Amino acid sequence: MLEISKNSELSASSVTPPTIVALKQPTSQAWVKMAIANLDTILLDHSHCERKAAGVALNLMFRYPSNTQLVRMLTAIAREELEHFEQVNQWLERRHIPLGHLSAPPYGAGMKAQIRPQEPQRLLDSLLVSGLIEARSHERLGLLANHSPDPDLAKFYRSLMASEARHYGVYWVLANTYFERDVVKERLEELAVAESELLETLHPEPRIHS
Amino acid sequence: MLEISKNSELSASSVTPPTIVALKQPTSQAWVKMAIANLDTILLDHSHCERKAAGVALNLMFRYPSNTQLVRMLTAIAREELEHFEQVNQWLERRHIPLGHLSAPPYGAGMKAQIRPQEPQRLLDSLLVSGLIEARSHERLGLLANHSPDPDLAKFYRSLMASEARHYGVYWVLANTYFERDVVKERLEELAVAESELLETLHPEPRIHS
Repeated sequence: MLEISKNSELSASSVTPPTIVALKQPTSQAWVKMAIANLDTILLDHSHCERKAAGVALNLMFRYPSNTQLVRMLTAIAREELEHFEQVNQWLERRHIPLGHLSAPPYGAGMKAQIRPQEPQRLLDSLLVSGLIEARSHERLGLLANHSPDPDLAKFYRSLMASEARHYGVYWVLANTYFERDVVKERLEELAVAESELLETLHPEPRIHS
Repeated sequence: MLEISKNSELSASSVTPPTIVALKQPTSQAWVKMAIANLDTILLDHSHCERKAAGVALNLMFRYPSNTQLVRMLTAIAREELEHFEQVNQWLERRHIPLGHLSAPPYGAGMKAQIRPQEPQRLLDSLLVSGLIEARSHERLGLLANHSPDPDLAKFYRSLMASEARHYGVYWVLANTYFERDVVKERLEELAVAESELLETLHPEPRIHS
């Protein structure tokens, strides 16, 4: 179900962050440095990411109400994202960071722009784009876990990693449920290239997907 | 927190359906007759209602990301609606009803049209409209529980009623958190009248809010 490379031990002792094979380029050290120097902003942005991820899953359920497996699997994902949203918000409270708006980096809109407007391509691309974002989140939460100066926060990030990898797997399985495996693989390749290109230039503001 | 009239016992033995005081008119016997004669369609529509309710809560969280109490309380509601969505879908599966699109009755759009576009009225109206829809759902699930020929299904409807009443209470509490009590009461009165008027003519297709 998951395509995770051999160095992807999810144990707390891992030093090298796990890499999901789908990702074309690993995250730069520059991002890690910026994120660790701005952990409060990263936490607030993370809260937005979890809420957005729940929204994306719910929107897909609205758009394809007859696709039973999609509805079933995405309901579980949406529920889990909302649970994480609550958990991240508890961290914000603990660190006295007020909830609030935060400008979005260009990554989300850039990925959304890759989704072809015609069906059935729209469904395929929507699933793969969501999968890639989950894969990147998995990689970056791993980096935050490995570099966070607060051991409790590191533990929290590590606890979320497995879910992000699982969510990547769910989107991949759904893509393969509704489309031929070769079609899925080829399109994933293209989208993964686009995904890495979007992150090539570091966004000047600290975000999970900057 | 809840404004429920004295006959609103939530126990399984209650015969008279509970009435939330906010509702201006009780549901007609014509609706009960139509709903009970079309329980499969009502179940499918109920599934859509739970998903939509989760979507409404999530949209409000997106629109007011800095309103901490709103975000916290609506996260809990969205999670619960998704749980109910899963449970209703299990009932659909058990009765071999395939998931699928169903045309919406005019009720939802009619209620949405009551929301004034300018802030802060938009927030107040959004909360009260959601509250009234939850109140009506509570009343109608009670009627389904009392009249369903399938005792297991009746039990299921009864189990959901308490949540719907609680959700009404949450929206009411949130309205009173952000607005003066007199302003809330007056607007609730107006919206409750509009809500009952929307249901005065029975929609020809069986729906939870027909």
